[in-house]
Amino acid sequence: MRGPKVVALGGGHGLYASLSALRTVTDDLTAVVTVADDGGSSGRLRRELGVLPPGDLRMALAALCGDDEWGQTWSEVVQHRFRSEGELHGHAVGNLLIVALWELLEDPVVGLEWVGRLLGAHGRVLPMASVPLDIQAEVELDGTITTVRGQVACALTPGRVRSISLLPSDPPACPQAIEAIEAADWVVFGPGSWFTSVLPHLKVPELARALHETSARRLVILNLAPQAGETDGFSPERHLEVLREHAPALVVDAVIADDDVVADPGALEKAAGSMGGRVVLADVAAHDGSARHDGPRLAAVLDEIFREKR
Amino acid sequence: MRGPKVVALGGGHGLYASLSALRTVTDDLTAVVTVADDGGSSGRLRRELGVLPPGDLRMALAALCGDDEWGQTWSEVVQHRFRSEGELHGHAVGNLLIVALWELLEDPVVGLEWVGRLLGAHGRVLPMASVPLDIQAEVELDGTITTVRGQVACALTPGRVRSISLLPSDPPACPQAIEAIEAADWVVFGPGSWFTSVLPHLKVPELARALHETSARRLVILNLAPQAGETDGFSPERHLEVLREHAPALVVDAVIADDDVVADPGALEKAAGSMGGRVVLADVAAHDGSARHDGPRLAAVLDEIFREKR
Repeated sequence: MRGPKVVALGGGHGLYASLSALRTVTDDLTAVVTVADDGGSSGRLRRELGVLPPGDLRMALAALCGDDEWGQTWSEVVQHRFRSEGELHGHAVGNLLIVALWELLEDPVVGLEWVGRLLGAHGRVLPMASVPLDIQAEVELDGTITTVRGQVACALTPGRVRSISLLPSDPPACPQAIEAIEAADWVVFGPGSWFTSVLPHLKVPELARALHETSARRLVILNLAPQAGETDGFSPERHLEVLREHAPALVVDAVIADDDVVADPGALEKAAGSMGGRVVLADVAAHDGSARHDGPRLAAVLDEIFREKR
Repeated sequence: MRGPKVVALGGGHGLYASLSALRTVTDDLTAVVTVADDGGSSGRLRRELGVLPPGDLRMALAALCGDDEWGQTWSEVVQHRFRSEGELHGHAVGNLLIVALWELLEDPVVGLEWVGRLLGAHGRVLPMASVPLDIQAEVELDGTITTVRGQVACALTPGRVRSISLLPSDPPACPQAIEAIEAADWVVFGPGSWFTSVLPHLKVPELARALHETSARRLVILNLAPQAGETDGFSPERHLEVLREHAPALVVDAVIADDDVVADPGALEKAAGSMGGRVVLADVAAHDGSARHDGPRLAAVLDEIFREKR
């Protein structure tokens, strides 16, 4: 086995980015994925069939797919979306496949294992909870605070999110996710939609306990840009402050930030230091006009951090 | 390689039955499947996405799935149907998977090969034509003849079908299906919906030519019961007569019929003889209250016939 035991927390494109980098620096990788999406294909499946929203899980699996023709092809299949004027429009094939496996095998973790085997996945993908969740957010606009329910509403409501909570507030965590966190050498938070993909894990009580009590080191990968409707105008240090507000006792060992994005390194170091950690500034951006991380550059930084602490 | 090169023609449950038996007596098996379904999940996909109806192809693939846990599980997944009050209700997962592969790989045969590899299929499954087809049937009721279009209309219109044709009338055959028929030792017709699954292959001109010209021997497996709305009251020999009406020059080498079903063996032998063949009477029924064939019993009869002619 090469590399440390790593658990990556998140959802969506952010988790896809961290997994794409992490898979190249360790062979022991577990993704613990948010299950609070209520939009798009996932939201429709959740409402129609009463299942966990599969989309973030699917994307994490695709990020881990095998490098050979088999893995690449099935990854393209699971990521494929139907486009039509009809009822299938917008559904991702992998979402349908995951849901079918859940219906047949009656165990979310076993169903995801089968998709992982299909893709020749370099790692495991687990849901953070065993039941579908809703995010409830306090959104501030012009001094007024509104409470909105649901990931879509949270993204669409103008203003800045101040805090989130989950409905139900004490959902059952996925037991295998707890075990993975307890056994990990490193736990990685972010990048991703800060309130709807990165923080929710800390609001599942059993998962939060494991994240606080694990002997693993904790690493935060900061976003490259604020996100409209969620973190408008947030500085890198503000992201850490929000993390701390949601988990005041959480110790963080290292924070990766892109050196182009950090306007005030001192403020960021202070925020990281207040959580127990240091800042690693590096060029980790894709520089392609997007606010996405570059896989190989991020992997090199992660590898260096993991090696130092070994 | 064990056993002769066999091509099985048909669709639906009938083809599932012949493939389930044939896979146990030969390792060189190709199914050539009708693509004229316009009902259910297949009909909806065909209308929504403009693809070949995948349902009969999916069922043939499932009949050929591997015996191990991998093959069995993925076969259950592709056969799984969503049940809900919503837009996915009734869709078979394998239909969605096949269509996704077609959209991605832009080649029906290559897409089906990928599903075959997923299932560890014991054989190949090919569409009989490269474009979706409609069956047009002449249906007789109380002396009046009506022309109906579509497999669903054909099944639902009361009366007896007299003949069928295809729309378009000269569709492009699947080239790999032609090759398989040309190279075969045996071509197997039926069992199955006589007008909508067994005869359509003879109405695709290129395929009909190959079926007439091949040096392969031709075998017909007769149904165990007439089918309401299609072949009401048809005797076994009437099934052969209809086959002959649709392909007057076709030579048939052997006809398998269940001995419980044949009321007039002489008449059946005469009908078979007029096409050049002999009748093999045997107990091939499942005896489970259905009109289905028993896999092992049918396989034993097929094996004996194949061995005699080797």
